[in-house]
Amino acid sequence: MEKQNLTIYCNCRLSDSALGLLEAGVGEGRLVVSAQGVSGLGSSRESLDGATIAFGQPDPSAILASGSIRWVHISSAGITRYDTPEFRAALKAREIVLTNSSSVYSEPCAEHLLAFMLAAGRNLPASLATRCEHRAPRWQELRETCPLLTGQSAVLLGYGAIARRMVELLAPFRMKLTGYRRTPRGDEGIPMVSEAELPVALAGADHVLNILPDSAETLGFFDATRLMQIRRGAVFYNIGRGTTVDQFALAAALRSGHLNAAWLDVTDPEPLPADHPLLEVERCYITPHVGGGHLGERDELVRHFLENLARFQKGEGLLDRVI
Amino acid sequence: MEKQNLTIYCNCRLSDSALGLLEAGVGEGRLVVSAQGVSGLGSSRESLDGATIAFGQPDPSAILASGSIRWVHISSAGITRYDTPEFRAALKAREIVLTNSSSVYSEPCAEHLLAFMLAAGRNLPASLATRCEHRAPRWQELRETCPLLTGQSAVLLGYGAIARRMVELLAPFRMKLTGYRRTPRGDEGIPMVSEAELPVALAGADHVLNILPDSAETLGFFDATRLMQIRRGAVFYNIGRGTTVDQFALAAALRSGHLNAAWLDVTDPEPLPADHPLLEVERCYITPHVGGGHLGERDELVRHFLENLARFQKGEGLLDRVI
Repeated sequence: MEKQNLTIYCNCRLSDSALGLLEAGVGEGRLVVSAQGVSGLGSSRESLDGATIAFGQPDPSAILASGSIRWVHISSAGITRYDTPEFRAALKAREIVLTNSSSVYSEPCAEHLLAFMLAAGRNLPASLATRCEHRAPRWQELRETCPLLTGQSAVLLGYGAIARRMVELLAPFRMKLTGYRRTPRGDEGIPMVSEAELPVALAGADHVLNILPDSAETLGFFDATRLMQIRRGAVFYNIGRGTTVDQFALAAALRSGHLNAAWLDVTDPEPLPADHPLLEVERCYITPHVGGGHLGERDELVRHFLENLARFQKGEGLLDRVI
Repeated sequence: MEKQNLTIYCNCRLSDSALGLLEAGVGEGRLVVSAQGVSGLGSSRESLDGATIAFGQPDPSAILASGSIRWVHISSAGITRYDTPEFRAALKAREIVLTNSSSVYSEPCAEHLLAFMLAAGRNLPASLATRCEHRAPRWQELRETCPLLTGQSAVLLGYGAIARRMVELLAPFRMKLTGYRRTPRGDEGIPMVSEAELPVALAGADHVLNILPDSAETLGFFDATRLMQIRRGAVFYNIGRGTTVDQFALAAALRSGHLNAAWLDVTDPEPLPADHPLLEVERCYITPHVGGGHLGERDELVRHFLENLARFQKGEGLLDRVI
């Protein structure tokens, strides 16, 4: 397909520098920036007619109403709005390709998760808040309660780009890693367990890394029963989506001391209301869904889209293809 | 040398389980536990006569006064009290071997330092302290100011066991690493710079990892001049000894914004007095000299000593030999 024939609809929230990159990168292509562009969420009243490509967060019904769209590139890793059986089937029937931006977010999310694991292991929140004399009881306690990450065990749930990068980052720690995903492919590089085997894996874990995406199947995946299957004293992390965890059951597991700590970048809802139990239990550490953020993020989103645009124009396979 | 001939003086502060390990491990050897054992610092009035081996923190003058000591195993990584030209010369003249416990502390110190680097990169202190709405200005700021560690540059100063382990832990981040040590050996695995080349290296560093030991040569190594040689906006870490940094010059470099942040496990003095400028500047994060601490530390110290004891008895080379 020739470049000049392409019309690209964009409602991705972009910085000036990122928009400049995009304008330069599409060349002869016609770029239509949504009037709602900066809102980041497409409107169902906005027509995608005439556009071949949609980049950003286009409204699902507007995609289906368009007769011209052939490829949709989502500017996030999460694709909850697009991940229904009906929408997937409709895209397949019309031969519309769906890609996401998971390559842009796997690195910061993995760094965020490893930051959590090391901050937990080194007890950074307590240690940063304390000035104490050498050999004082508080000092001894801070020093001698830090387990080394090296040699510990972890279960990774959800096995996409973030988990693969985590396995790389954790390699020098020589940990016992186990993975769980809906459909193992055999190329994960670490042992995978089925849902039936998961209780045994959780019972042996020092760290439970929840990277599950949001979907009908993962809703409340970590309920009270599953949380109690985790080894007593383990640390629980969530860098996926808040909806995959029963928030009240998690608070109870922390309150009872069953879990040593929880480190959460995502909650349900976000942010939590001021009287939420997760804000009242000890050793629950929460960042406000910033795991994927990083310096230059908007530029990276555009570069990633442009790499896929070049592949699209050459008829090559697209990166981060979902459908 | 036969085991039964050995008398081992010990003033290492030990838990009950660690003392049990030591008693079982020395076998036929005679173990003399210092009356000041739990103080952790030997007294010059305590005689080491009759002991072949000293384990812990024996007083330097007591070592020299003893006619029987052949090997001293220090229960820390730092050896400031023993690291004078006079003491080194005296030990060499008497053929007394000195080893330390750096292998026990390299892993927790490296994990602590990487925890600092990732907490800095992900802006964890600010992020953990904030609940904010998606797309609110504060949220955008938190997300978009986090530089990825991957691909950044770091200079490591002091190149012993901690630095070597750091190079392993940082390998997956594909960083540009440069090292500096008093006497490069050529086996460091990363490019080393001389003191003359250090200003150029510091000017290119995103992260400056100070792991220098305490000695007459390193006293105030990072003075105002050297701190200003560091690239503007870089992050400074100290996991070595507080005395290697001019604390007031560091506070000034933070106050002026020349350095983006400082993460310190060691200061001078420890703890800092309540009115110290490092406690008043922003983005200075301090843990109270806990970097080497870890669960099972006392047991590990004994296991490391016993491994060296076995080597000593077989006439083999000792681990972590200093002199």
